[in-house]
This record gives sequence, C-alpha cells and structure tokens, in this order.
Amino acid sequence: MSLNPAPLAQMANAIRALSMDAVQAANSGHPGMPMGMADVATVLYSKFLKFDPKAPDWADRDRFVLSAGHGSMLIYSLLHLTGYEHPTMDDIRNFRQLGSPCAGHPENFLLDGVECTTGPLGQGLAMAVGMAMAERHLNAEFGDDLVDHRTWVIAGDGCLMEGVNHEAIGLAGHLKLGRLNVLWDDNRITIDGSTDLSTSEDIPARFQAAGWHVAYCDGHDFVDIEKALAAAAASEKPSLVACRTVIGKGAPNKEGSHSVHGSPLGDEEIAAARKELGWDAPPFEIPDDVLAAWLKVGDAGAGTRAAWNESLSGHPKSTEFIRRYTGDLPDTGALHDYIDGLLKEPQKVATRKASEMALGVLTEAVPEMVGGSADLTGSNNTKTRATTPFTAEDYAGRYVYYGIREFGMAAAMNGMALHGGIIPYGGTFMVFTDYCRPAIRLSALQQARVVYVMTHDSIGLGEDGPTHQPVEHLQSLRAMPNLLVMRPADVVETAECWELALRQKDRPTVLALTRQGLPQMRTENVENAGGNACARGAYRLKAAEADRRVILIATGSEVEVAMKVAQALEKKGVGADVVSMPCTELFDEQDADYREDLLPDVGPEKILRVSIEAGTTFGWERYTMANGLNIGLDRFGASAPAKDLFERFGFAADAIVPKIMEKISK
Amino acid sequence: MSLNPAPLAQMANAIRALSMDAVQAANSGHPGMPMGMADVATVLYSKFLKFDPKAPDWADRDRFVLSAGHGSMLIYSLLHLTGYEHPTMDDIRNFRQLGSPCAGHPENFLLDGVECTTGPLGQGLAMAVGMAMAERHLNAEFGDDLVDHRTWVIAGDGCLMEGVNHEAIGLAGHLKLGRLNVLWDDNRITIDGSTDLSTSEDIPARFQAAGWHVAYCDGHDFVDIEKALAAAAASEKPSLVACRTVIGKGAPNKEGSHSVHGSPLGDEEIAAARKELGWDAPPFEIPDDVLAAWLKVGDAGAGTRAAWNESLSGHPKSTEFIRRYTGDLPDTGALHDYIDGLLKEPQKVATRKASEMALGVLTEAVPEMVGGSADLTGSNNTKTRATTPFTAEDYAGRYVYYGIREFGMAAAMNGMALHGGIIPYGGTFMVFTDYCRPAIRLSALQQARVVYVMTHDSIGLGEDGPTHQPVEHLQSLRAMPNLLVMRPADVVETAECWELALRQKDRPTVLALTRQGLPQMRTENVENAGGNACARGAYRLKAAEADRRVILIATGSEVEVAMKVAQALEKKGVGADVVSMPCTELFDEQDADYREDLLPDVGPEKILRVSIEAGTTFGWERYTMANGLNIGLDRFGASAPAKDLFERFGFAADAIVPKIMEKISK
Repeated sequence: MSLNPAPLAQMANAIRALSMDAVQAANSGHPGMPMGMADVATVLYSKFLKFDPKAPDWADRDRFVLSAGHGSMLIYSLLHLTGYEHPTMDDIRNFRQLGSPCAGHPENFLLDGVECTTGPLGQGLAMAVGMAMAERHLNAEFGDDLVDHRTWVIAGDGCLMEGVNHEAIGLAGHLKLGRLNVLWDDNRITIDGSTDLSTSEDIPARFQAAGWHVAYCDGHDFVDIEKALAAAAASEKPSLVACRTVIGKGAPNKEGSHSVHGSPLGDEEIAAARKELGWDAPPFEIPDDVLAAWLKVGDAGAGTRAAWNESLSGHPKSTEFIRRYTGDLPDTGALHDYIDGLLKEPQKVATRKASEMALGVLTEAVPEMVGGSADLTGSNNTKTRATTPFTAEDYAGRYVYYGIREFGMAAAMNGMALHGGIIPYGGTFMVFTDYCRPAIRLSALQQARVVYVMTHDSIGLGEDGPTHQPVEHLQSLRAMPNLLVMRPADVVETAECWELALRQKDRPTVLALTRQGLPQMRTENVENAGGNACARGAYRLKAAEADRRVILIATGSEVEVAMKVAQALEKKGVGADVVSMPCTELFDEQDADYREDLLPDVGPEKILRVSIEAGTTFGWERYTMANGLNIGLDRFGASAPAKDLFERFGFAADAIVPKIMEKISK
Repeated sequence: MSLNPAPLAQMANAIRALSMDAVQAANSGHPGMPMGMADVATVLYSKFLKFDPKAPDWADRDRFVLSAGHGSMLIYSLLHLTGYEHPTMDDIRNFRQLGSPCAGHPENFLLDGVECTTGPLGQGLAMAVGMAMAERHLNAEFGDDLVDHRTWVIAGDGCLMEGVNHEAIGLAGHLKLGRLNVLWDDNRITIDGSTDLSTSEDIPARFQAAGWHVAYCDGHDFVDIEKALAAAAASEKPSLVACRTVIGKGAPNKEGSHSVHGSPLGDEEIAAARKELGWDAPPFEIPDDVLAAWLKVGDAGAGTRAAWNESLSGHPKSTEFIRRYTGDLPDTGALHDYIDGLLKEPQKVATRKASEMALGVLTEAVPEMVGGSADLTGSNNTKTRATTPFTAEDYAGRYVYYGIREFGMAAAMNGMALHGGIIPYGGTFMVFTDYCRPAIRLSALQQARVVYVMTHDSIGLGEDGPTHQPVEHLQSLRAMPNLLVMRPADVVETAECWELALRQKDRPTVLALTRQGLPQMRTENVENAGGNACARGAYRLKAAEADRRVILIATGSEVEVAMKVAQALEKKGVGADVVSMPCTELFDEQDADYREDLLPDVGPEKILRVSIEAGTTFGWERYTMANGLNIGLDRFGASAPAKDLFERFGFAADAIVPKIMEKISK
C-alpha cells in the first residue's frame, strides 16, 4: 500500500511547527534538523517503526536513535504527536527550561521513547550498533517470537565525520547487522557552513567499503523515502539511506543555510514559514485532523504488541526472558564458594588474571554477560570458556572481538546495556580509558550497567613506557559523577569488586587491574562486611598493634606496599592501620560512623594519614586532610621493568617509611 | 636507477636481527612489525627519505613517523644504522630498560630522529597529517627553497582501525596533502589473531573515498616497493601504499602468525631465523659491509643539506625563518597596550569573546599562530581577521576548518607544533576535551606548544544540558602532568592567559572559557605581578577589610560570585580575601613564600578557606585543606538557562554565605 502524500505533508509540518515554535520560545536550540528531516521521520514512524506509545518499554519494540541529538525537537514532536504520556504540550512549551523533560539534547532518563542520550556527536549511531548486536544476540537465544526488531538511526554529517563513526560502522559491517538502518540527513551543512569547508569524502563509498548497503532518496518526497527505507529494511547488510534534504525546510528565506542550524528563526521568518507550509495553527496547537492522523500512527502498534505479549506468556523461556529484561541477577552463590576457596588456599596472581578467574565463575552463572576486548583479549584476560565468539555466523556467542576500536566498543556496550537483556563488559588498557572516555561519560550519565575491564593500571605494566602507563587516569575517572572506579588489591578483592559491579543496576564500573602478580592480602573474612568487604568502598585490612599514629590508605597493587610500610613502622613502635580502599566512591557513600571509624577525624596532629597509590596524588587530600602525606606519581612514567620503576619512583617501604617518620616527628 | 637487491636484503636483515635480539634481551617487545616492514623501511630510507643523521633538526628534512609505535625497534635500528649519535648499540642492548633512550615505544623527547611519540594507535598518522599541513603552510610562506619536504608514515592495521584515522585521512584528503605518504603494513594480523576476527573493511576503497591515491606492493620485493613508493611520491593526492607483508618475516616457524606480534621469539626460533636469513653475526653486531652500506645511506643527505644551508643563509626571510623554527616569540607588546586599554575602559564580555579580542591582537603580532575549530568557529570565537582560511587552494591561510573532528584536530595540532615553525591553536567545547583527550595527553607528554581553546566551560553554557556541560573536566585535566589548565575570570585575565600560553615552549595549555558574559574584575594592575598577574597562577584580587577570617579561592566565572560573597561577608564584619586562581599548576610552581602569603598555613581554625568553582569539588581539598569548604557541582548538570542553573546548583552569594557563616561559627 502506498502512502497518500497529502496528510503526510501536514503531519510533517506539525513537527516543523512545533520545532520552530519551541526553539523560538526557548530562544535557543536547533530548528534546522527537525525541519529538514520531518518528512523522513514521518515516513519512518508511520510506515516502518514498530512501537507502542502505551508501552514504551516493550522489549520487542524497534529502537529509534536520534544520533544528531541537537535536533531534539524532532523526537519530542514525534513522541508527543504519537501519544506518549510525555512530553505533554506543556513540556514542549518549556523546551530547554529547568524541570522540563524536553532538555536541550534528548536524555534517556528523562523521557520514555528516548532510547539513549545523544548530543555528543557520533555516539548515538555507535550505541545503535550495540543495540543491533543485542537484538541479534537475544534473537539467537530467545527466537523470532520474542526478539525480532530493528534499530533505526537518524544521523547528520557530524555523526558521520566523528572518528567513532568509523569504528562503529566497521564493526556493524563486519558483524552483518542487517537490522540496523541509518538515515543520513544529507543536507550538506554544518555549523561552520557548507560541508565543502571541511570535507570532500564520498560517504556512500566509505560505507560500502565497510560492508554496508546504501540507498538514496529525496528526503522531501514521501514516495521516494518509503522506497529507500523499504530497500534498507530488506537488505541483509546494515544500511545507510542517504536522504537528500534541505536544512530548515519550510523557512523560505533561511532554509538550506547554516543560519538555521542552531539558532531560532525569529518571529518574522516563522511567520513566513507558516505561510510557506500552509500552517495556520497558532504555536503549540495541532489541528485536530493532523493530531488524529498522528495518534492513529501511535495506535498502530498495539495489536502487534498484544500478539507478542501472548507469545511471551506461553513461551517456555518467558521467566528467564523477563528476568533478563528486568535486570535482576540470577543466583551468583558460586562466586562466594569460589572466594571461600581462595581464603583457604591463597593465590598470588595479577588482578587481571584474578578477574579472569572471577569471570570464569560469573559468566557461567550469569548468561546475560557479554564480554569482549578491543584487540587485547590475552592481555585483558576477558575471555572465558562460557563466552564463545559472537560473530556474523553465530550471534549466540557471548564474546566480541571488537578490534582496535576502544571508543566503538564502549559505545556499543552502552547500546547493549540500554537495549536491555545484556550486561556488557569489555577490556582495554587502563591508559586507553582516554580513548573511550566520551562513552564512559555517557555510561555514567545514562545510568547504564557497563563494566570496563581496564588492565595494566599503573607503571606496574613496565616496559611499554609512558604512553601506556596511566598516571592521572584513576583520579580523572573518580572525578566523573555516577561512575564507580574499583581498584582491587588482590584475587579476593577482585572477585568482590566484580560482584559489586554486576549489582549496580544504574551505574557503570571501571575495574582497574594490574598486569603484575600480587600476593593475596586477604586470607580471612572481614568482620561486619556482610560477605563482601569491598562493598563499603574501604575497610581496615590491618589494625595498628602499637599506639596508632599512622593510617595508611592504599589501593590495588600499593596495598602490598602499605602492608610492608606498616610492618616497618610497627617495628619502630609506631602503630599503623592499613586501610584498603578499592572504591573511593562507595566509601564516600557510607554513613558518618563508618567513615569516622576508619578515618577518625581527630586532626592531623594526632594521626598521620598517608595515601599510597601509583598515580597522581591530586585529589588524595580528600582522604589525608591537611598535613597528610600523599605518596604518588605526579609526572609521566618511563619504560623499564616494573620492579625498577616502583623503586625509581619511590613505591617501596624503604623510601616511604623515612618520609612518614620525618612527618610524625615534627 | 634501479636498486641492486642483494645488499638491500642484508641491510633489511640487520633490522630484523637487531629487532629480534633486542626484544629477546629485554624479554618484552614487538619483533613482528620491524621484521615484517624491514624491507619497506630499507627502501624508504635508502631511496626516498631526505634526512641527515648529523643534523636531525634540519628544518627541511622529510618527517618519518612510525605510527605503529610498538614496532619501535624498527626506528631504533634505522637511526643506529644510518649513523645518528643515538641510539648507540649499548642503547639498543638496553632496549626497554631504565635510562635507555630506546623505550618500549618511541619518545620524541628521548631521541633525535623520532619525530613524535607513538604507541597510542592512530595518533602517529594523525600527527603526520599536521606535519604535512605545516609543511605546505610554511612552503607557501617561505617558498620551495626553504620548505620542500615530505611526510612518510608507517602504519599498521591498528592505526587504520582507530577512529582518529577516519578524521585524519578525511582532513588530509580534503586538504589534498600530496606530500603525505602512508605505508600500510598490510600483514592481516592483530594482537588477537587474524584481522578476519574483527574487520571486513576494504581499506583501499575507504582511503579512495576520502580522496587518497592508493598504490600496492609486495612488501618483500624491493623493486616492487620502490615502484609503489615512487608512485606515492608522484601523486598529488595523499597516498596510501598497501604493503603486503608477512609479520615476523624471517622467523621460519612463527612468521605470519599473531604469536610474533608482541612477544620475544625465543632462542630457538631466533637461531632458526638466523639460518633462514643467512645472518651469521652474533647479537648486536653488524657485519662491516652491511654497516658500511647503511652508513652510506645516512651520508647521502649531507650534500642536499649543505645546499639548503646555503639557500637559507642568502634568503631574504632567513631571520624570520630561523626565529620561527627556534620557537622564540616576536614582539607582543601590542597585547600589553591592549590590556592597558582595558584597564582604562572595562568591558563586560564572555571570556570566549575576550579570547577572540586577545587573538585579534596576537594573530597580527605572531604570524606563526595557526588557528582553527572543530566546526564551532562562531562559538569558540577562534577566527580573527589575520587568519584567513587554510585550504587546498591556499595553504598560506592560517585558519583551519577542521570539521567535526575534535581528536583529529588535536592530533594535527600536535603534528604542527612538533614540525616546528607553527604555534597551533584550536577550539571546541570544553566538554569535548574528552574527545581529544588522548591527543591532549600526547601534547603534554611530547612537550608540545599547543593551545586548546575550550569554550562553554561549565553549566554556564545553559540550555544544551548535561551532555554539553563540563563537570569533571577541569579537575581531570589538572590531574594530567605537564599540562596547564587556565580558567580566566575576565577579559584582562584572558589576555594574560593567552600571553602565558604562548610563552610555554614545552607544554600545552587548555584555556577554559565561558559562553556567558562576565564583568571585568580587574581594573588596575596587580602589585608585584610583573605585568601579568596570572603568571603566578593565583593572586589576591581583593584583600580582607575586616579581620581576615575567610579566604575565597575561585576561578573563571565564579570569581564574580566570590567577590559578591566577600562583600556580603564584609558587611557582616567577616574579613574575606578573594584569590583568583586562573592556573593551579602555575601556582603550585611558585615558591613557598608566595604560596604562604596567599594561602597562609595557619591552620583551618583561624582562617576558613573556601573554593568556588562550577565543577566537581574533587581535588579542591589541596587548596582548602582540612575542614575547608568546597563549593562545586558533584553531579551532572541540567538543561536550562544559565542563570537558573547557577541558582539551582547554589552558585550565588545568597546560598554560599550562610554555609560559610555556619562553618566559621563552629
């Protein structure tokens, strides 16, 4: 059945009107993209997208990602017009104002129907790759009856120019994600002006080189759009649909120019656009017939969803399916058995190896875990027996060879986590958190359960030298809101940290793990720790024997150093606690009593607090207070064996003890 | 003249022998790449590369970038064999040991002939793009006699898979950088195994789509290599030479497999390789005839350089040329005239606008400044009258439309700075320092004078919301070694900070600038500041009038807030200093007297220190000490007008004063 163009045009104009009026009211925002892509979006929502505004969380809905997030009024318009509870017209009136869910850029935590937060360019599309991976994986596990949907993306030139685009489309092409369709707003305009200013790329050729199908359409011809979208949907490859559009379409004097990209049109031009579009309704009012047509589009999915609900209720795997999507963990008691075994038979291993051991247990117990590495599988120790390769030939696999695509990996993991039904984890070197940092930030902002397995976490990696040695990374990640950074000290803490990371339903975790072997520091359960000593972020690993004058606070590989320092101090009659602090953020969340017990606020004169971490000292003053002592590394590292570097940079009891003695003798 | 293959083969084997022996001795490193690319590198150095080991700083040398930095033994071998002073054979024997300039990855600050630090994949090639841009720009300015060289890159699959590659080659293709030639080590192996595991890309097609010329060769056939390199050199487009190679070539049982990528071959395989290669010399010894052949290659450039020296000495622009390459600034007195003007007629402008004003003066005075923006020219205020567009049609231009390529821009700026003769600056939003962070780190590590113009530096940007609002960015950048973060409070400080940034010959600067207008806080010269009050990182903007009980420390837009707080406190009889701290790192470098004068160490009971910055409080304890007060934002922001956000998040005197009063009344 072909579409009747007349009502579609007015449906699209409703998007245009809401977009230009909301941007004008806010006196800020981006009218150009929603007006330019209104026609394409109208065809997508009315003819292709599987969704039900009454059940935004329907597991088998199509995912729609507005990668060009600055055009947020496009999705706010669509959600409102098709009958989602939010945004209301008042929400839209308050576009970009405090308290409105219609934020400057779409936020997944503010509105149902916004599948992910977009705005940082390139990442929406890269997350969509993860969503499409999740769909294929869950389809392989639960079958067509429960999982059979597409991922649609609207992306602009910015999304395509960003480096992460290359990583994302390379991965999608390699994995043959045929259910991923990207509608490219080919308007030849960026903020600075014509795309000619900065690019000469043949974009379709590049996508084809990456294994994509390319379709084309006039983005203002409904019939042509429908044909192109149908071709995209039919292709077994991921598809790019090049939609030739005019930015700000409908604004007669400004369309096609970069002046409509990111500024209000102004009252005069809006009046001219109303005339041009034949749109008589006042701002924030939608004529009844147009609204009715849109609501009908919104209602169309209800039947499909009802049928799907029936499939689910009779499905043999329905309980497991629901558990997965709810995000509740299965029984992980096996991990505690494993920890009990360690307490009986201590092991000296690198924490990256300890992570592999814990993962061995967890990936057996938790089938929704999907792992991977950015081409460092053997170094990150991320692959287990249970996680066979996820490939174009076997989507049931649970291990992704992401290639040398750290940022693409992190963004894909965000997409998988947001899709639901999967807990993604992936590895690279700790220093390359810099490469994935924009995606880590979106994990945190979007409240996504993603676990970053970051190995080689200090100068302890040795010979690879300063380009590979994290210095500022731990602290710079701890500064990020809603992100847990965990740096376990041994094989036991590593298992505990893994358990904690999986328990965080609404925040990501970075696990910082050593390359080098570490002795097991914990050989017995810690009192009052509720079965997981790391859960409170920090705990007293060793209590002072002599009169307590020093508290040593350390993380990861430096806990061993702290224990040696403490022993040396005790020999001198100086009592010293050792506090292992695998996660500063969790410690900060503890009640005052617990914090006071561990780090008593009795003033620096009485008890000297010393932090020891093989990274920048910056920020450690939070825990060591005035006149504390911060042992760390405030310069770049060097290339040499780890042992030589720890000695060179003063991470040894011999070097630290005299500093403490000098300080407490003052 | 065609090459005689026989000696070339043994010359290449010298690289193979040194590489496998050095990695074996270090018991760590990457033999596969140097052995695989030895033949290509031998042809490059002996037939194409313009260089003189006796004058590694020769301005008109070709630049060679080993983007696949893990193959560092390739360049160490080449530098040694061609007669550079370093590395000596002892340096090579000590590969990857403490003190050897032969670090795990090549470091530009350790060895002449290493043009840039590589190891973090993708960035070497992206820096090479900047070098090639610098060459064309300086050629346009100084002519063929002084500037006429090529940039050669060896890159592996990792460099090509990284996202930054897309940005870099897109920029290079658009700018038609025909003197850039990338030799791709097409060995079909990554760390995890075959490239088939993670990629299906048609790499030549992608480069062609980006406007590149592609040549092909058998990377082990000297004649074929020479032909391909000649074709690359002849093309007016940037060229990719796909060199089909066998990784670890020469190791008979391991070559062609990922096991030779990053591990020593082992004694047995090395013995087998010696046999295979017909290489009888013991480890770290080069047969006389082979060494002689290599040294002859090294000597070949001396004549060209002598002729060039003559050109320079007689050239009308020789003084200016030398000044540029030395990195000394010209007279910037005009900036002080400008500042004097501001002191007389204060202005309320956003610091991004203040930056534009300072840049207007500086880009006139300092012709080596080359600016740009990642598609935010109008927002970053980076373009001035003096900086006309740098395009394929006009390389004399000084303003680069980088496109939506933050990381590519940052890496290109590193390349320009390292090339010499240029001081690059470029802008994007502060939040997107995350996108360029890996390159910012390399600016710092490489000691490169790059100025990052990062605008929209807090929730003060308003409506764009949390994806665009930096929170943790200031502190996470301050944690990075050898990087200056400057956050000026007004139009005067902005000019001062620009001056300071330009003065840093061996470190990069991030300027954090507001979107919103700020009143001029400084209307007179600061005593004892040597003409630039920001030079000491912090200074007393206002001294307490009543008995001093509070010191307010603020940066950027919050200095205005601090002044209001101080006024309110004084009214209550509480004396309060206001310290403006535009650059914490410079303040940390001051002598104890100065620091003590500003922040007297008289204990928290006597004087309360309060930090005010619209970003994470994490790290501010360094300056506020125990029981200090840190006013900041420890969560993500929100979308709303700036005024509403500052109020909502408590950055107003009304909200801050009671907190201070409570604290000092305890």
